[in-house]
Amino acid sequence: MLHLKSESSQRWLDQVEKHTDLVLIDHAHCEKKAAGTALNLIFAYVEDEELCREMTSIVNEELEHFHMVLELLKRRGVKFRRLKPSNYGNQLHELIRNQEPQRAVDRLLIAGLIEARSCERFGLLRKHLPDAELRDFYDSLFESEARHHAVYVRLAKHYAPESEVMARLDELAAAEAAIIAAGDENARVHS
Amino acid sequence: MLHLKSESSQRWLDQVEKHTDLVLIDHAHCEKKAAGTALNLIFAYVEDEELCREMTSIVNEELEHFHMVLELLKRRGVKFRRLKPSNYGNQLHELIRNQEPQRAVDRLLIAGLIEARSCERFGLLRKHLPDAELRDFYDSLFESEARHHAVYVRLAKHYAPESEVMARLDELAAAEAAIIAAGDENARVHS
Repeated sequence: MLHLKSESSQRWLDQVEKHTDLVLIDHAHCEKKAAGTALNLIFAYVEDEELCREMTSIVNEELEHFHMVLELLKRRGVKFRRLKPSNYGNQLHELIRNQEPQRAVDRLLIAGLIEARSCERFGLLRKHLPDAELRDFYDSLFESEARHHAVYVRLAKHYAPESEVMARLDELAAAEAAIIAAGDENARVHS
Repeated sequence: MLHLKSESSQRWLDQVEKHTDLVLIDHAHCEKKAAGTALNLIFAYVEDEELCREMTSIVNEELEHFHMVLELLKRRGVKFRRLKPSNYGNQLHELIRNQEPQRAVDRLLIAGLIEARSCERFGLLRKHLPDAELRDFYDSLFESEARHHAVYVRLAKHYAPESEVMARLDELAAAEAAIIAAGDENARVHS
């Protein structure tokens, strides 16, 4: 369903347990960036009606999640602040091809893979975190990440035949798994 | 209420009547840009809870308006497309001071002045356009532009005392009126 080529490791779960506050702050930034990505896709592919409709819903939902994470931070007495992002997003964005319509396919599939990885990781957090409030929180977000993944993959098929899209998704998912396997020394949602 | 220093001229109304389709396409771009501006303000001033709440509503509303303009274009058989923007936005953005918190004040007040000018012009369009569908359309948007203007001015007062904010609004409104008086050879919402 999520088209990922790997499962997140114990190493990442250990990082999260040791630096939960950092991961929560990073999570807020991720929701904000996800809203920005969806808005930029509207700007770039405005003639695609289904894309515009779906991206508008996603902007609204990501902003709602952003506020949910901010509320959670506040309840826990953690101040939201700037944070060096993990290398994950930048490394994935380097894989985007320059020419249209391939560029559209890649932008959508990479957005979809980021949602998929978040979904997979939220699935681990809702099971393994020692804190019940956080387990519930990640449980509440799990479904929408999976849904967003499916939306992005479906929209990519507006820009190439299904077989090409799925072959490219396979390639990008392999690259994504390699980036995740390399990890990041800073504890982040995608470290 | 709108803190503008001038009224739009007959010259502009003539431009709109002559090039209505161009102004409608530009209007769609303006709504999209307004959503982007509000989202960027969330990113920049995320510790300001009221700002984040208000900007989230504004992002959602501007995207809704964007879709309304796209629907209108579609009904009228006008293809949405890229368009050179008027100089208005860029000229206003050059007035933003670099240092915080003055930068916050200026970003908010300029966003507020753009809403005010849109409001004033939509007020003219809902009265003077020969096309009844368009008159109704601009009537339906008038109130939200006025409300957004008030929100931006109120939020600016988070970053400087009221007297300073109002003095700066006076200065920026004078600059805005000068930019509008100079006009733009291309027919646009803010030409």
